[in-house]
Amino acid sequence: MIIILKQNADKNKVENLKENLKELGFSLHESRGENTEIIGLVGDTSKVSENDLRAIDIIENVRRIQEPYKKANRKMHPKDTVIDICGHKIGAGHFQVIAGPCSVESEEQMNEVARRVKLSGAMLLRGGAFKPRTSPYSFQGLHNKGLDLLLKAGKSNNMPIVTEIMDTAHIELFENVDVIQVGARNMQNFELLKKLGKLNKPILLKRGLANTLDELLMSAEYIMAGGNENVILCERGIRTYENAYRNTLDISAIPMLRKLTHLPIVVDPSHAAGMRFMVEPLAMAAIAAGADGLMIEVHNNPEKALCDGAQSLTPEMFDSLMVKIKGAVEFFGKKID
Amino acid sequence: MIIILKQNADKNKVENLKENLKELGFSLHESRGENTEIIGLVGDTSKVSENDLRAIDIIENVRRIQEPYKKANRKMHPKDTVIDICGHKIGAGHFQVIAGPCSVESEEQMNEVARRVKLSGAMLLRGGAFKPRTSPYSFQGLHNKGLDLLLKAGKSNNMPIVTEIMDTAHIELFENVDVIQVGARNMQNFELLKKLGKLNKPILLKRGLANTLDELLMSAEYIMAGGNENVILCERGIRTYENAYRNTLDISAIPMLRKLTHLPIVVDPSHAAGMRFMVEPLAMAAIAAGADGLMIEVHNNPEKALCDGAQSLTPEMFDSLMVKIKGAVEFFGKKID
Amino acid sequence: MIIILKQNADKNKVENLKENLKELGFSLHESRGENTEIIGLVGDTSKVSENDLRAIDIIENVRRIQEPYKKANRKMHPKDTVIDICGHKIGAGHFQVIAGPCSVESEEQMNEVARRVKLSGAMLLRGGAFKPRTSPYSFQGLHNKGLDLLLKAGKSNNMPIVTEIMDTAHIELFENVDVIQVGARNMQNFELLKKLGKLNKPILLKRGLANTLDELLMSAEYIMAGGNENVILCERGIRTYENAYRNTLDISAIPMLRKLTHLPIVVDPSHAAGMRFMVEPLAMAAIAAGADGLMIEVHNNPEKALCDGAQSLTPEMFDSLMVKIKGAVEFFGKKID
Amino acid sequence: MIIILKQNADKNKVENLKENLKELGFSLHESRGENTEIIGLVGDTSKVSENDLRAIDIIENVRRIQEPYKKANRKMHPKDTVIDICGHKIGAGHFQVIAGPCSVESEEQMNEVARRVKLSGAMLLRGGAFKPRTSPYSFQGLHNKGLDLLLKAGKSNNMPIVTEIMDTAHIELFENVDVIQVGARNMQNFELLKKLGKLNKPILLKRGLANTLDELLMSAEYIMAGGNENVILCERGIRTYENAYRNTLDISAIPMLRKLTHLPIVVDPSHAAGMRFMVEPLAMAAIAAGADGLMIEVHNNPEKALCDGAQSLTPEMFDSLMVKIKGAVEFFGKKID
Repeated sequence: MIIILKQNADKNKVENLKENLKELGFSLHESRGENTEIIGLVGDTSKVSENDLRAIDIIENVRRIQEPYKKANRKMHPKDTVIDICGHKIGAGHFQVIAGPCSVESEEQMNEVARRVKLSGAMLLRGGAFKPRTSPYSFQGLHNKGLDLLLKAGKSNNMPIVTEIMDTAHIELFENVDVIQVGARNMQNFELLKKLGKLNKPILLKRGLANTLDELLMSAEYIMAGGNENVILCERGIRTYENAYRNTLDISAIPMLRKLTHLPIVVDPSHAAGMRFMVEPLAMAAIAAGADGLMIEVHNNPEKALCDGAQSLTPEMFDSLMVKIKGAVEFFGKKID
Repeated sequence: MIIILKQNADKNKVENLKENLKELGFSLHESRGENTEIIGLVGDTSKVSENDLRAIDIIENVRRIQEPYKKANRKMHPKDTVIDICGHKIGAGHFQVIAGPCSVESEEQMNEVARRVKLSGAMLLRGGAFKPRTSPYSFQGLHNKGLDLLLKAGKSNNMPIVTEIMDTAHIELFENVDVIQVGARNMQNFELLKKLGKLNKPILLKRGLANTLDELLMSAEYIMAGGNENVILCERGIRTYENAYRNTLDISAIPMLRKLTHLPIVVDPSHAAGMRFMVEPLAMAAIAAGADGLMIEVHNNPEKALCDGAQSLTPEMFDSLMVKIKGAVEFFGKKID
Repeated sequence: MIIILKQNADKNKVENLKENLKELGFSLHESRGENTEIIGLVGDTSKVSENDLRAIDIIENVRRIQEPYKKANRKMHPKDTVIDICGHKIGAGHFQVIAGPCSVESEEQMNEVARRVKLSGAMLLRGGAFKPRTSPYSFQGLHNKGLDLLLKAGKSNNMPIVTEIMDTAHIELFENVDVIQVGARNMQNFELLKKLGKLNKPILLKRGLANTLDELLMSAEYIMAGGNENVILCERGIRTYENAYRNTLDISAIPMLRKLTHLPIVVDPSHAAGMRFMVEPLAMAAIAAGADGLMIEVHNNPEKALCDGAQSLTPEMFDSLMVKIKGAVEFFGKKID
Repeated sequence: MIIILKQNADKNKVENLKENLKELGFSLHESRGENTEIIGLVGDTSKVSENDLRAIDIIENVRRIQEPYKKANRKMHPKDTVIDICGHKIGAGHFQVIAGPCSVESEEQMNEVARRVKLSGAMLLRGGAFKPRTSPYSFQGLHNKGLDLLLKAGKSNNMPIVTEIMDTAHIELFENVDVIQVGARNMQNFELLKKLGKLNKPILLKRGLANTLDELLMSAEYIMAGGNENVILCERGIRTYENAYRNTLDISAIPMLRKLTHLPIVVDPSHAAGMRFMVEPLAMAAIAAGADGLMIEVHNNPEKALCDGAQSLTPEMFDSLMVKIKGAVEFFGKKID
């Protein structure tokens, strides 16, 4: 960490600051430019807040050199993490497709979709029982009943299930869920992250709609710091000034996260696009950029879907997409197993 | 709501769509341009999701004409809402200053800060007991003990208190809190909003760091739809590409929210700026643009603050700022009472 | 175009407005909702400014239904445009790689890079003679001399050249240039676009760093409206809040532009990333998402480059990248010829 | 400037790098942390490009400590610059209002608007003869004839004029213009900036719609480096994800620019808002935040304006706004003279 002192900072205060920093266990490297004096902090700066330092009168600015996350940091764990979901691996060359409807609506719907996406080659089943909706007047999900229907569909089709949690109060309901998803709006719901850190099951952590990669990794760190290192990151589009599409898929996040962290990275082209015709090109781009998996919305009747129908594929569309996905995954040197 | 049909949409499907829309209770107004056919929906569209419509094969796009919020909408409630906080009014010309430290740290700190800001003219006391921190390794607040210290300081200085809630599981702990704050990261924690809608006390709802005004008002609508219409909106800076400051204060939000809604609007210049020297000019700008209140961080020793010291004023600085605030509030035709 | 009237708009004024709109040649379709009255304009609205309408007292808002561009619009020209650059085609399945250094520096450098990228399979040679640099103290390019060196290197290696123009005053200097590039910062330099519209050679139009796809297409329209329909669009990353990379490559722009326009689309992964290690994954993603070409920076000695060395590949790196590009282009069903 | 080396960087390469940096005239300060080795560069780094350094194999990252601008930098010129426009001062407590129509349309219009805004107290007259319009089909301004009408209206009302230049080819036409405006879209038209640096008249430099304050100051530096130090900065709203208004006025830019530079700062609330009702609150906020001037659109018949009518005030509205502006300028301690 680099501390830049103000021009003409009071010398006694500078001496005091240095003493305090040394007491905190840092060694200091000082350097004086023509107009600027800087102090380099050597030691573990992950517990030091830049803002606390900026509050000090004689400090002009502070620049962090080392990433503030540790357990999620590739520098500390050079090898790719592989997460095993009931026998299906993700990471380090293992690729997974998670498919299913936005919302669980009925037993028939879940069974039909599960059966079809399994046939097409998806290994994991998704479906929302608790739905974050912008409007209080929109359908909010079937809650407990939805969870039951999803679990049943997963069981009878022999597919592990992935579903979203919205509140710490619901954690017990998710006992039999195979992968718990944290939605974009809850990426910085820190109380929830802490509780998920106490569990022993994979967490699919979606990037918030305007969160940086550093913040995403710090949220992963919350879960990992609690003891649960099974975190899968998910890029699902960010908010920009462009509104030709619902979100802007940040494809650059994939190679950059690959460099920064050892955790597996999944892409959700359905939410990123918000429109059916973009799902295929974005899915192909994600594979080409190095993603470890895809999350794709499939509905047996998207025109009647209770949420986000605009981006859902029909089982037929998904089936022909899966042919292309399998080809591309193989072409780019990964395997679905 | 306007539905734009695809060029060459199948005529039978168009007829089916119209029948379905009529069954939902809408009257339809059709209009055919040179290249485009559109259908206007007349009726209450607040329960219709644009995305559901976009999922339909023959629909090119959908444009909403009416705002999707009702209870928060000025069109439905033309008069400014005034909220009474233990005798202190906010809204419709009544202006309030909420002051106090980012985090509650100790009894001495809270008492000292409360005493000083009260002397300077602040009516409401803030302080964080549960702190949302980006890093799991940062100080997370004193929790229950912090709430107790804040309540005590409020009581002995005769100031209502404002403090942030982070989890539905904590609602009972907030029983004696006068105003419950929802932080920016929880603006779309819908489970929390629903629970707060069942309470009978004012909620200070902060705008999320990349949320639109429409989304902010929809989150207010969540609380109001539950029965609690005491919502105070808070602009605290948004995330943009500019990183000369922590956030970009969206001053335009004040006149626009004033037009869209009847709810009171507070500005938090401390969090928007993230730097002490910007608090005064941003506070002045907020008053000039028509805000109903300010939320300002004050710490008796900002250089030792456990969080966000960089933006905290000392009690002396706050005292001289309050002189200017009082002058400006009066100059712009409001009153602090 | 849809005009939404204010609640309680004066009836006489509404009648006047309607008369005026009819005189402009539009037919009107009116529709009255519970709280809102709207007027639909049928006719050619490309010359009508939404802002002019919004200025009118009784108008609440205006929504455009049809895109404001015509010549660039796929609805008007359903077939993909193919542009022929000295015998090398781009568009409609024809894929091109443009390679070369950021800046032209010397005869040796240009010849060496041209020879190497040609050997690896690039058909078009790039190089900057006029360089837009944020700082007046940075190297600004070799200007006329740089153009000469680039032309020479192109000629002796039998490669058409692509180079950036920065000022209308330089147009004559570009007489022998095969493809003129408009940089991101000049995307809305309308005087320049108008002059390029009078030429009869391909223009590579880069998207501005915070411009929408609609604005990009309107800038293409400027060139096309002048008579020059040989426009190649280039996505090179947009500015967002994320600063882990220089720009955020907007991969979603490719399928969306494909839908909106018939013009060829090129991607510049070097500028988007700003970092060498990201060029390959972003290039692969661009091909997978359907791009018609790539623009890649190659320098024989990136560590000594006079500009943007951080993103330049060495000829060796480019050679091994071209092997992958060729494979991916073929896999995704296009051809380099 | 701080250079962060890669972990395990080759020692010989590090030695070479240090030698090269010393040859460039820098003294070096080295510091070795647990995982990181950094080199501090002491000397004038304004000519060193971060990207050139990042290209070097053994360098992980580079952080700039000193601002890259000099002439615009308050550290080099602590006192506020005052610019004299034909006897009207701006900066250091002197406040100016620039008013007039978006476009010059006719002699009658210009004379009427000039007469009225002068009567209300505006000292400077604006009007566009060359108009940057997103669409090639929109009115592009009266060009030379418009300039003549503007000059005439300025002369007969004894008001200096401010008008926008769009092309280096037009510079001679602007010989009698008192203040030349560079529009947001041309903020990084570096060829234009260089030419304006050779003139001896004030330049009003508008911030680009997605440019940082650093970039704005670097563009000012382009003009100043050429010898023309009469630069007035103008904040006119930036592009964000929020689209409730045309642009988001960046009010925080005012105090931050005040800290970074000695140049005067003007705010354009008309373009920032894009809507008439927001002009007053944003103008008040700009004064309160410390701006040195305002630029406001006034049209004698906004409903018939050829451009941007939606944000233009009538002379009557402007007259009552000027009463408030005068009051607020005085209240906040500045004077209009």
